Amino acid sequence: MNKGGKTRLERFIARVVGQRCGIDAAAAATGALAGVVWEVGLGNGRTYDHLRDRFAGRDIIVFDRQVASHPDCIPPQDMVRLGDFHDTVPAEATRSAGAVAMVHADVGSGDIAASRALGRWLTPLFVQALAPGGYLVGDQPMEDAALEPIALADIGAADLAPDAYFVYRKRG
Amino acid sequence: MNKGGKTRLERFIARVVGQRCGIDAAAAATGALAGVVWEVGLGNGRTYDHLRDRFAGRDIIVFDRQVASHPDCIPPQDMVRLGDFHDTVPAEATRSAGAVAMVHADVGSGDIAASRALGRWLTPLFVQALAPGGYLVGDQPMEDAALEPIALADIGAADLAPDAYFVYRKRG
Repeated sequence: MNKGGKTRLERFIARVVGQRCGIDAAAAATGALAGVVWEVGLGNGRTYDHLRDRFAGRDIIVFDRQVASHPDCIPPQDMVRLGDFHDTVPAEATRSAGAVAMVHADVGSGDIAASRALGRWLTPLFVQALAPGGYLVGDQPMEDAALEPIALADIGAADLAPDAYFVYRKRG
Repeated sequence: MNKGGKTRLERFIARVVGQRCGIDAAAAATGALAGVVWEVGLGNGRTYDHLRDRFAGRDIIVFDRQVASHPDCIPPQDMVRLGDFHDTVPAEATRSAGAVAMVHADVGSGDIAASRALGRWLTPLFVQALAPGGYLVGDQPMEDAALEPIALADIGAADLAPDAYFVYRKRG
């Protein structure tokens, strides 16, 4: 009934701890790098709140279909790119090419195949947007020659399943 | 902006880790105790999934306004008490008085005062339902002379804020 012997609560804990570890590692590693932050998928705004704390002073560009976050976590209107990722992300990737220090992409849904496909489609756009040395943190695996995978075990999360969350550094 | 210097993501992690620690501690402590389990607030079913793993073989009675959980976490229909807690919990507390080994009550909403008030209203009903030695685990503080508070630090969660989640043992 439970994947890998883990309950849904345990897998969920691994996921949110992976988010925190990945975002914190990206913040530590990109401190000297200029650039904006992307939050791809706002949801209820929990990770947005964490991003604006860990990347204080940086613009955070937020992508989602609608702003449905907690009242404390509403992004400034001019930072929001409203609509389908298939429209908003390519447009912004062209505009901000090479100028993004960090992308956080929590884009999965209950449909695993569709989530994986969306992750594959987004990957080259994130590579285009990221500055060299920039970080990509997300809930989908994103394979690209320009991306060096960072193991969760190497960022203080050795107790998590290796696929609880995904962290990459853009080479260069 | 962030309560106690913690981001919403950090407070959320403390909450779900507190759920896991509280439920696991209750399961370990009540192994020899007969009785059913109550899940007060089903939500998306993450903790229900954890309860049915940790309390395997026991009936789990589920209280909520509707069944809106993940498709993998739908309780058997005869175990569901559908409706307002104000109606369903007193009725079941009378029916199961002293026969409940463990109550998990995740009943809070965004309205903190209303959540605390609901917790206070539910407390004597849970005391009535619980067997002596039974456990109460929840997101609201529940003070009653019959309930011995268990500190999170004493159940392997010393790194959490003491009010991240609440655990009690019914005396006797």
